Amino acid sequence: MRQMTARLLTAGIAGASGYAGLELQRLLAGHATLRASVVQARSAGYDDIDVVRLASCDVVFLCLPHGASRAIGEELADAGVRVVDLGSDFRVGGWEYGLPELHRAKIAGARLVANPGCYATAAILALAPLARRGLIDGPVVIDGKSGVSGAGKEPSGKTHLPDVHGGVTPYSPTGHRHVAEIEQELAVSVTFTPHLLPSSRGLLVTAFARLSDPRADLLALYDDAYRDEPFVLLGGSPSPQRLAGSNVVHVAVTVDERTGIAICHGALDNLVKGAAGQAIQNANLMLGMDEAVGLTTWGIWP
Amino acid sequence: MRQMTARLLTAGIAGASGYAGLELQRLLAGHATLRASVVQARSAGYDDIDVVRLASCDVVFLCLPHGASRAIGEELADAGVRVVDLGSDFRVGGWEYGLPELHRAKIAGARLVANPGCYATAAILALAPLARRGLIDGPVVIDGKSGVSGAGKEPSGKTHLPDVHGGVTPYSPTGHRHVAEIEQELAVSVTFTPHLLPSSRGLLVTAFARLSDPRADLLALYDDAYRDEPFVLLGGSPSPQRLAGSNVVHVAVTVDERTGIAICHGALDNLVKGAAGQAIQNANLMLGMDEAVGLTTWGIWP
Amino acid sequence: MRQMTARLLTAGIAGASGYAGLELQRLLAGHATLRASVVQARSAGYDDIDVVRLASCDVVFLCLPHGASRAIGEELADAGVRVVDLGSDFRVGGWEYGLPELHRAKIAGARLVANPGCYATAAILALAPLARRGLIDGPVVIDGKSGVSGAGKEPSGKTHLPDVHGGVTPYSPTGHRHVAEIEQELAVSVTFTPHLLPSSRGLLVTAFARLSDPRADLLALYDDAYRDEPFVLLGGSPSPQRLAGSNVVHVAVTVDERTGIAICHGALDNLVKGAAGQAIQNANLMLGMDEAVGLTTWGIWP
Amino acid sequence: MRQMTARLLTAGIAGASGYAGLELQRLLAGHATLRASVVQARSAGYDDIDVVRLASCDVVFLCLPHGASRAIGEELADAGVRVVDLGSDFRVGGWEYGLPELHRAKIAGARLVANPGCYATAAILALAPLARRGLIDGPVVIDGKSGVSGAGKEPSGKTHLPDVHGGVTPYSPTGHRHVAEIEQELAVSVTFTPHLLPSSRGLLVTAFARLSDPRADLLALYDDAYRDEPFVLLGGSPSPQRLAGSNVVHVAVTVDERTGIAICHGALDNLVKGAAGQAIQNANLMLGMDEAVGLTTWGIWP
Repeated sequence: MRQMTARLLTAGIAGASGYAGLELQRLLAGHATLRASVVQARSAGYDDIDVVRLASCDVVFLCLPHGASRAIGEELADAGVRVVDLGSDFRVGGWEYGLPELHRAKIAGARLVANPGCYATAAILALAPLARRGLIDGPVVIDGKSGVSGAGKEPSGKTHLPDVHGGVTPYSPTGHRHVAEIEQELAVSVTFTPHLLPSSRGLLVTAFARLSDPRADLLALYDDAYRDEPFVLLGGSPSPQRLAGSNVVHVAVTVDERTGIAICHGALDNLVKGAAGQAIQNANLMLGMDEAVGLTTWGIWP
Repeated sequence: MRQMTARLLTAGIAGASGYAGLELQRLLAGHATLRASVVQARSAGYDDIDVVRLASCDVVFLCLPHGASRAIGEELADAGVRVVDLGSDFRVGGWEYGLPELHRAKIAGARLVANPGCYATAAILALAPLARRGLIDGPVVIDGKSGVSGAGKEPSGKTHLPDVHGGVTPYSPTGHRHVAEIEQELAVSVTFTPHLLPSSRGLLVTAFARLSDPRADLLALYDDAYRDEPFVLLGGSPSPQRLAGSNVVHVAVTVDERTGIAICHGALDNLVKGAAGQAIQNANLMLGMDEAVGLTTWGIWP
Repeated sequence: MRQMTARLLTAGIAGASGYAGLELQRLLAGHATLRASVVQARSAGYDDIDVVRLASCDVVFLCLPHGASRAIGEELADAGVRVVDLGSDFRVGGWEYGLPELHRAKIAGARLVANPGCYATAAILALAPLARRGLIDGPVVIDGKSGVSGAGKEPSGKTHLPDVHGGVTPYSPTGHRHVAEIEQELAVSVTFTPHLLPSSRGLLVTAFARLSDPRADLLALYDDAYRDEPFVLLGGSPSPQRLAGSNVVHVAVTVDERTGIAICHGALDNLVKGAAGQAIQNANLMLGMDEAVGLTTWGIWP
Repeated sequence: MRQMTARLLTAGIAGASGYAGLELQRLLAGHATLRASVVQARSAGYDDIDVVRLASCDVVFLCLPHGASRAIGEELADAGVRVVDLGSDFRVGGWEYGLPELHRAKIAGARLVANPGCYATAAILALAPLARRGLIDGPVVIDGKSGVSGAGKEPSGKTHLPDVHGGVTPYSPTGHRHVAEIEQELAVSVTFTPHLLPSSRGLLVTAFARLSDPRADLLALYDDAYRDEPFVLLGGSPSPQRLAGSNVVHVAVTVDERTGIAICHGALDNLVKGAAGQAIQNANLMLGMDEAVGLTTWGIWP
């Protein structure tokens, strides 16, 4: 597919007016090869969604509300188009699961990719080295903390500043939409409880896994797993505020030797590695490019 | 002891210039009976600490840096003074543990009381109904989230706004100072990982306990435990931003039926129920008063 | 009216579900004499608004949306009831203007009082000592900065956390509703430009007045004006975050000697001195009580 | 100088560990032509500052504490090196004032450029179209609002989160360091009062100028001035939270017809257009490149 990078490639965005769609446009504006050529949304100021025009693109990003991707996704699939769906419709038992750190080769060969959820990306990458070695004596406990941009662009009580400012708000203590994909990828049962932070962008998961072998060398294990990954930063104190705008996921692991529980942190920008950035990373792979193209900017900090 | 409430009582504060000491002064300014009569600190603008003057008070509050209470606490104890220590020196295997919801009668009869840590108060009250019934298949996982006022008045990298704003920061993933008192009170081993929120005041713990009997009726259990408590609010979505300035701890419990794990939330104002308010609640009991005197203001919200 | 304080007095609240109405309930819960006896709103969970029941109270607080007070206010006026209107309908050329620091005696003798706007309270008190001495060479420039609770309880784009977090947002650069009452009280023309802060509660105005006599001793002037005021704090660096929950307005003045412009800061809690607290201060005066009853709590800080 | 862009150019940074120095490194990492080759600071982990090595670079950025640039700046000037000083030492009556929108040609021909202050950049660009036409009847009033990253990396009481969170803090109501450069560029006297926002990055100035001719068509005037500027966005509601990481300054003007005062807003990212980004814009000009190279990323929002 080498020849593909020689020319400009075209991207379509369906659902361009939401936060993920806007972030895709922001990131594609700095992409060397891929252009946002067809930009559609059901909001004022955008072309309405038109499958035929989308199908003319080299790759289509679906940034539609959860549940709204299925019909258009299947239509584009039938048309043979490359599609990355940022919704949850195809993540479990559906299209190729678009987490490059775990499924790079399959993504590169796929035409249909389901982009992981933001919490799921952080949780899976924080726990995968343990899970793949069978070191987890489940269930795993995952505590999620996210800025409110994850709740979308539409004002609501959940995002009304006076309701969330100055504290932290638990919600959906069980049964969050991302549990199924985390369990699919880690093959372990999960209790996941999310919380809203008084911030806009960025997400941290703190995962607690009882170790079946407390003597395992976790630092070596994580280093082996992620040493060569372009977008995984290992060690230290993962804090999403240092990753704004970046496609990096920051992972760290510690063991509480008194209880034999591994504490795994994963931080990322929910709109980049948790959504639009990872979607571009997947599209880069699907189009035969270096997966890092357009995604090399540093996090904005302070 | 009824006659004690007939006259004004005097309180001494050692360490009045820190956040807990300031909050004590704020709360005592609205107390019907107890006056902050001796107010001392090692900072400019205060009288220096003088044990003899403190010993003349009906009750002394020690708000000193961790580790600095032991000598002065023992001196005051020898003098027969009522003391509430807000530090950690006497909490484990030391003075009476000042959590009224668990030890009300003993506190009322004590002269020396160790005020619990802020995280510990929330965690213990969130889990005590389960622990006392032997329903926890340990270890328990506790994820703590606190505003930075808990780190004190002294500027540091940990409290520098650009370092914490817009995200959330894990610290001390194992071995936090409060673990020992939580384990003492709950008689179960604990993994506790705290995080700094981009806010000033208020704290939430999310505790995860595997249930030994997943059919237990937790709502009834918590209702039995806390129904008559003046400062425990049950159910809903505990959020510290709704409790600013109040002595209430907000507790809720849910079970993840897929994994048999109970998710217990406890929210409070770290400087009130987590420090100065609870200290006054203890002093009220020690002095024979209604424990709620001076502590009935509602949380400030929004 | 001395006898009035001997018994409990009753307050009615129309519009109890909004932020000002909630704050009134919070403050009245700590008031020695005045009880929130009739609590009404057009929201679920409240009794609907009923003028007859309101008219049975010793004082009625109207906390209705701007423009909705006129009809009910006039009905209550006809019934001879004491009313404090927290809306803007009667502020200009209407009922007695409820700023006790300027109109204490008239308020004490009035049955109908228009509670000032939050920005107006801060701006007028910051500038009044200059205006009353004729020291202002107008127009005055006023830059306002407020937390978003001033925009009310209803979620909107203006209060959606991702829109306001991490910055500051100008709005209505000219023509704000509070201009007319500021000009009425100061008798000088005003340019007023407000901004939304990324916070919930609290407000600061920075006012710039060209001095007609740059040699005037402003510190003495302000000290004379406010020395005996129970709710005016003078000097230092007025910051609303130190006044949460308090009825204090913090005022400071400096002169830029290079330009002859006085810079006047006024900070307050927009829901207390800027709304519910000042309304109680007015009601206290109207009912013959000490104006500070129920309003003596310190600001919550940090 | 066309040939200069054909090869990679080298940049030196003295003071690389502070916020401006870090931001320079972040931006240069995405620059097509200019490499951060010599990176020095007096902090641990950096090479110490060495003028000889700096002098070998095509351009040197000085990011030293205010007052510390003079000696090293003069040494580099004597060596004939191109220097952009981000401090305040050479801004008034010193080196070429590095505001490309006003002095593009002179900057392109200069070897020594003083990068403007962050507040000054916003204030000057917000007012310059009025000032250049002689439309201002001075003095001008400027109200500044900035996130605390402008106060630098070193923790202090001014940046301690509990001191600034949830409000806004005035400081230095007169006599701010940036006044002199604003007056130099606008040729009008200025009263400037800054405030700290409870945020990290981003700045807004609100400037109030009495118009000598209230009938002037300001929209046309600003459009003429900035229509072709690559980094000036005109109109709407300038809000720094929408510009994080971007080199854009957002300017808007309105007239209060009742008072004849123009209200001019200018918003920018204090570390980009207010420091490192503008420094690169200047260096690009000095090195004969398109001034926008490396500076085209959109602001991160939400």
